Amino acid sequence: MHSTIDGKVTADCPGREILSHLASRWGFLTMLALQDGPQRFHVLRDRIDSCSEKMLSQTLAALVRDGFVSRSVEPSNPPRVTYELTDLGAETAPLLRQLSTWIGAHITDIASAQQRFDAIG
Amino acid sequence: MHSTIDGKVTADCPGREILSHLASRWGFLTMLALQDGPQRFHVLRDRIDSCSEKMLSQTLAALVRDGFVSRSVEPSNPPRVTYELTDLGAETAPLLRQLSTWIGAHITDIASAQQRFDAIG
Repeated sequence: MHSTIDGKVTADCPGREILSHLASRWGFLTMLALQDGPQRFHVLRDRIDSCSEKMLSQTLAALVRDGFVSRSVEPSNPPRVTYELTDLGAETAPLLRQLSTWIGAHITDIASAQQRFDAIG
Repeated sequence: MHSTIDGKVTADCPGREILSHLASRWGFLTMLALQDGPQRFHVLRDRIDSCSEKMLSQTLAALVRDGFVSRSVEPSNPPRVTYELTDLGAETAPLLRQLSTWIGAHITDIASAQQRFDAIG
């Protein structure tokens, strides 16, 4: 992912896999949702529109494994499972938010560019 | 992609498609490579390790369509095709670079988190 001495940008570094977790459809939305504070699984599921429970579980597991999200279980009946950003996650979430905000602010410019491109054919 | 009034984060907005172009494996690397200035197709192909010509063409076409990259053809024989960031692309590239740099700087922390996670099993 980084420029090397001979100017190559390489795709095989471990950073690629991590980026793919953060920038995946659900990874991105989950990180943004958790920026609002710790959340129970069912709250995340309801907030992150159209993500299945299975997909959300897989997404959270990848983010927990990377150290961006922590999972805590309260031994009640049924157990309460809460997810929150770790310090590492809290550091990267604003960068994702910035990118999301930037895209949101430029969506009209981008749609215009797409229309111009499609008109030329 | 943005929080709505009822706190939902939605996946079906046009921003998702755009993010997927920027954050795709090759989209990300292409945007970073073009941050160094205008480049001919074959130079990009040689710089972006292990990306096939076909994949690079498709990646560039999506970025041109979104208005992040411009493509100019010099009518020589053979024609010289050059790609460069548009103003829009030049605005978003630093945000991608920031994310890439952050991941690079924290790769050891992330690898440690993964090892801890895998050790617990």
